[in-house]
Amino acid sequence: MPRNKAAVSIRDVAAAAGVSVATVSRVLSPASADIVVREETRDRVVRAINELGYRPNDLARALLQQRTSTIGLVLPDISNPYYPPLVRGVEDAASQLGYRVVLCNTDRDPAKTAAYLDTLVKARVDGVIVAGGNLSELPGHPRVFETYRTKLVMVGRHGLAHPSVRVDNTAATEDATAHLIGLGHRGIAFLGGPEGSSTAQDRLLGHRRAMAAAALPTAERVAGFDEHGGYDAARSLLTGTPPTALLCANDRMAFGAYAALADAGLAVPADVSVVGFDDVPMASYVRPTLTTVAVPTYELGRAAMRLLQDALDGSAATEPVLLPTRLVHRASCARLA
Amino acid sequence: MPRNKAAVSIRDVAAAAGVSVATVSRVLSPASADIVVREETRDRVVRAINELGYRPNDLARALLQQRTSTIGLVLPDISNPYYPPLVRGVEDAASQLGYRVVLCNTDRDPAKTAAYLDTLVKARVDGVIVAGGNLSELPGHPRVFETYRTKLVMVGRHGLAHPSVRVDNTAATEDATAHLIGLGHRGIAFLGGPEGSSTAQDRLLGHRRAMAAAALPTAERVAGFDEHGGYDAARSLLTGTPPTALLCANDRMAFGAYAALADAGLAVPADVSVVGFDDVPMASYVRPTLTTVAVPTYELGRAAMRLLQDALDGSAATEPVLLPTRLVHRASCARLA
Repeated sequence: MPRNKAAVSIRDVAAAAGVSVATVSRVLSPASADIVVREETRDRVVRAINELGYRPNDLARALLQQRTSTIGLVLPDISNPYYPPLVRGVEDAASQLGYRVVLCNTDRDPAKTAAYLDTLVKARVDGVIVAGGNLSELPGHPRVFETYRTKLVMVGRHGLAHPSVRVDNTAATEDATAHLIGLGHRGIAFLGGPEGSSTAQDRLLGHRRAMAAAALPTAERVAGFDEHGGYDAARSLLTGTPPTALLCANDRMAFGAYAALADAGLAVPADVSVVGFDDVPMASYVRPTLTTVAVPTYELGRAAMRLLQDALDGSAATEPVLLPTRLVHRASCARLA
Repeated sequence: MPRNKAAVSIRDVAAAAGVSVATVSRVLSPASADIVVREETRDRVVRAINELGYRPNDLARALLQQRTSTIGLVLPDISNPYYPPLVRGVEDAASQLGYRVVLCNTDRDPAKTAAYLDTLVKARVDGVIVAGGNLSELPGHPRVFETYRTKLVMVGRHGLAHPSVRVDNTAATEDATAHLIGLGHRGIAFLGGPEGSSTAQDRLLGHRRAMAAAALPTAERVAGFDEHGGYDAARSLLTGTPPTALLCANDRMAFGAYAALADAGLAVPADVSVVGFDDVPMASYVRPTLTTVAVPTYELGRAAMRLLQDALDGSAATEPVLLPTRLVHRASCARLA
């Protein structure tokens, strides 16, 4: 028996057994059970496999079975602490189900997104999970997926004819703003994520609804979904009569707002109350601790992978799956005197 | 021409051209240029390919060429904000070089690491980049890699016979501690990462060297590499005579230490100076801003991918590649009165 088993190819097995490579494939592949291989031939192949110590590789098996046991996970920005738990959720479920995860980071760039989707479908991944990002990032994607029949699951998006899982961002910010109004706040500004982000739009909508219901005017700022964006947006609100509360479209923006308030000599929550969104780990470690909307990010990832498995099994839900959010009350909000 | 090109298989082409599948493969694969296909046969195959609109898929090509254009990236914890820029660096370089990246998150679990490496080599990835984590996580890995001839590059480890890229963690903490000593601090505690992490060990070693050079005793705490670990470790140091400075093995631990100090009514840097390690984005947004060792994480990722490409080209460096760190002076350190 040769020592380096990896060096033994299917061709070696075919030669040793005196059959064609196709015959060895037929013996190996459960998918070709309907193709008859004579018992005597089969025995010869199995004997050659054992004698040579041949291990069929996953790639060859994938080609024969037309599946790769690999899925793609496309997301806008792995640097955002919102995404790691989602990646972990997808990865843990995928691992249990026997899939590998190819991670693709689009940087919210439509060209990069399109290139990744093209690469993924050409690599014949079994499915793709697209998380977050802008709707405009996926120009003509349905055609790509129709052509290749690759299964697609969306996380955090809606309005597309694919299985999806998300939270109700609008209801969550409506609740958060209502909470601030309940504490007596009237000047509540919304620090929103980038335009074109459906998540940011949904969160803005909820804020507007709660403000409209209370007949209050709303101040809004559009900025990047990170500390830098939150810092600049908060600073631009601190001229004239500053708001008494800030609702931030995510926690990173809230951390930036904390810094801007500190630099302006304003105390949280004595001068300004702050609410975040996502409940990333750091939300418990800033001082004061951040009141924020907890998103079950890890569960979103797991649910997406399970939806993808359902789709691959031909039994995908058509209704979007909604997971609950929860306003976590910490120390960054105070009742207005 | 059929509308669904993906449905056309190499078998269809072979049938249309009246040749074997192997012959179509030979025409398609540049690797088999030494195998003669008669010109007339070749023309017939090319005609069939064009008429049917056949697109050879990457998987089939990979099998023929024995390469997958995929690499594995194995890391301990994607939730640590240290890693996203590294992932981005690997991914950007990989994308330029025509590789896809399969991300694997080991959670510092030896069994999980072994399973991922096994999966990756069986999937015939062209190479694997292993970043961070514990040395003990890779039991017997050299044998696996020898057997499968998959190329391996290490990030942030040393002492193994593979191409590697890292920073000099020991020199960096030696400098950082010397800086604190220069500011007049004598009671400088080290908040270290988990035992078994070679990075944590190297950082501890540098701290010890600087303290020994100044003939100062050192207080040390071992804890998780995150806010929670930093919080608990800092709190345990605040009984009796607290240190006047904390050197933290990473920024997340420093953020936890900030919280513990705030909760104990101690001010940074008036009461306690704090130094972090990594320079994650949040280090600029905590107040006071965090003095920390900047690690060129993105560049580490890019360099690792380039080393892997060199290894695949058969021209890998044997000497470890060292990238420079830099102590970034911010507001969390004060001269001791």
